[in-house]
Amino acid sequence: MTDSTLDFQPVAGIRLGTAAAGIKYADRTDLVLIEMATGSNCAALFTRNAFCAAPVVVAKEHLDSATPRYLMINSGNANAGTGKDGITVCNSTCEALAAEVGCKANEVLPFSTGVIGEPLPLEKLTMALPAAAANLSETGWSDAASAIMTTDTVPKLVSRSFECQGKTLTVTGMAKGSGMIRPDMATMLAYVATDAKVEPGLLQECLEQAVAPSFNSITVDGDTSTNDACVLMASGASDCPAITDGASAAFVRLCETVLAVCMDLARAIVKDGEGATKLVEILVETAVDVDEARKVAYTIAHSPLVKTALFASDPNWGRILAAVGRAGLDGLDIDVICIWLGDVCIVRDGGRADDYTEQAGQAVMDRDEFTIRVELGRGAAAARVLTCDLSYDYVKINAEYRT
Amino acid sequence: MTDSTLDFQPVAGIRLGTAAAGIKYADRTDLVLIEMATGSNCAALFTRNAFCAAPVVVAKEHLDSATPRYLMINSGNANAGTGKDGITVCNSTCEALAAEVGCKANEVLPFSTGVIGEPLPLEKLTMALPAAAANLSETGWSDAASAIMTTDTVPKLVSRSFECQGKTLTVTGMAKGSGMIRPDMATMLAYVATDAKVEPGLLQECLEQAVAPSFNSITVDGDTSTNDACVLMASGASDCPAITDGASAAFVRLCETVLAVCMDLARAIVKDGEGATKLVEILVETAVDVDEARKVAYTIAHSPLVKTALFASDPNWGRILAAVGRAGLDGLDIDVICIWLGDVCIVRDGGRADDYTEQAGQAVMDRDEFTIRVELGRGAAAARVLTCDLSYDYVKINAEYRT
Repeated sequence: MTDSTLDFQPVAGIRLGTAAAGIKYADRTDLVLIEMATGSNCAALFTRNAFCAAPVVVAKEHLDSATPRYLMINSGNANAGTGKDGITVCNSTCEALAAEVGCKANEVLPFSTGVIGEPLPLEKLTMALPAAAANLSETGWSDAASAIMTTDTVPKLVSRSFECQGKTLTVTGMAKGSGMIRPDMATMLAYVATDAKVEPGLLQECLEQAVAPSFNSITVDGDTSTNDACVLMASGASDCPAITDGASAAFVRLCETVLAVCMDLARAIVKDGEGATKLVEILVETAVDVDEARKVAYTIAHSPLVKTALFASDPNWGRILAAVGRAGLDGLDIDVICIWLGDVCIVRDGGRADDYTEQAGQAVMDRDEFTIRVELGRGAAAARVLTCDLSYDYVKINAEYRT
Repeated sequence: MTDSTLDFQPVAGIRLGTAAAGIKYADRTDLVLIEMATGSNCAALFTRNAFCAAPVVVAKEHLDSATPRYLMINSGNANAGTGKDGITVCNSTCEALAAEVGCKANEVLPFSTGVIGEPLPLEKLTMALPAAAANLSETGWSDAASAIMTTDTVPKLVSRSFECQGKTLTVTGMAKGSGMIRPDMATMLAYVATDAKVEPGLLQECLEQAVAPSFNSITVDGDTSTNDACVLMASGASDCPAITDGASAAFVRLCETVLAVCMDLARAIVKDGEGATKLVEILVETAVDVDEARKVAYTIAHSPLVKTALFASDPNWGRILAAVGRAGLDGLDIDVICIWLGDVCIVRDGGRADDYTEQAGQAVMDRDEFTIRVELGRGAAAARVLTCDLSYDYVKINAEYRT
């Protein structure tokens, strides 16, 4: 599946540079620097996987002690499961970049993605820092979006804009992710920037609001990465007044725009899910609360039997029904459950709908994108999860690639 | 993988008959009757999937109101997701068998396995009942074990014996199951019989003890069936005195033997898991309690990334580590975790073991059967789960078969 636009709007005050450090492959860019102009603010969310990678540990420490000036991202090696040595190497890379660009080591946030459990090659990475620093540019987004890819087949880069007091502000974001995707608090790696000036607390609030329905509502394979991170940068380089009021129209528009960028990126990640041939929205409605709606949606989205039926374009609603039934809801009354494939009702009141025809179900299943909608008939809450199918190629990619 | 013995010991007082009803395929046996001699007792466990099939509903009702005389099992159609019509059809099949053999309808326990959501063809099934009743025989186990198969590639049939007061008693069991396997209280379909005479309460206790570490500790794909059922029959046809004391040596030996039969059958189901090429035991030790040990074991066993690495014989311990990390344990200290592949320590104190070599890990991974052992370093509890890999053939089987 290819669905990526490399059209983007640069963000004033945010410069990106790339280099080929040879971390896993000799012939591709794998190192990205992102420089934020003085006065920028930065919010971040990280994986909740207990085995979080060394760069996640270091980035959190640095965020607590300084305002970040640089993000340093490498692909090809996750620096995860590397113990205390991994932390030491990660700190050394931050010190090397600080020396190169003239900032403090704790003003650098490090990020890594790629193979777990291999030592990060310190020298290769530090040798490439001058080249990456030398080509820092506000137009570097496209090269950067490609450099952070691992099993991704397409770069993921999105721009949107909004109006604030007569000025046009920009939100541009990039992400990588294809497998080991079931983000918990943040996605694999996503970097979103705006030229708005935003007070740090509001920036964090904006990011959290945007991540919940986007990166935190997608799943490819249910495997939460050790390296998930999502960063929102606000350079303040626009001449629009600072956003300091969470109730202001400007903040609301900023949040809407950041959310839209995150939704586009999250959707692009699932479309580019390892081996994916279909993009499927699982919508669970009339649940008692959002938690149980998400539980049902994820149980369907993670079912290997549902996912292989999606791959086969087989309207095998029995597998959806079985997944709903095993989701662990207390006192579930199966006699009121209804299930739709797109606009076609396949299950009504717990059994096959009288007017359902296999042809109608097949017509929906043959599409590249559609919605599976479940009505639980228990309350007023709903949840939406994006997922993809399970194909031969998922097995092939993951039997051959060392994550 | 083929690993099945069709050697078996008949069980006095238990007769089995088969017939070809043409429920899904024209040319194979798909109907089984099991007759228990007068005076037999019978214990059963069923799926906890909220969408349980019509025969599960009916069998539970019949168990509550009578002592079963006959089990009636069809493959090819699960009679699940069929609403009230499914119940009506199921009751009609019980009535038809009762008329054929001369018992009451509630002395029949019905079981179905196969496609979900299709109406059970009542007439085809009832037309075949006389033929199945006509060939009831104590030596019918092998034909019956084949007739209950769906995507299974081999029948699963096991016999063991134990001594009681100088007499040899027999326990023989058969099971079917290959996909949609993550039993919850019972497996797909399993029927175990003994000629011991056992008081009903003790028989149920014996079954529950045997099912917990066997059928309830295996997973192929995490999908719990709508039709899971496990039945333990005691004909009392031996001339050994009745087992009425839960503390007696005879009861202990019965439980041990039933457990051994269930373990063999559970293992045979995982070995015959859809597309499986490897049988892997996940052993999680030094957990705070059994619940968290099982949580970690199932998170590893269900991870598509771990399962595809198993298929590739890739000692990719980073994926195991990431699965442990996302299992949701409170306050998990990753710095004390150790992981073994067979006898090879791959992770010590949260990082790659100093003495680990890729060759040593590879040697274990190349085997058809091995253990992944995780030490959490939090307490004294442990849990064991059996699983298999995720291969191209799993996708092929489930993209082509209508469950």
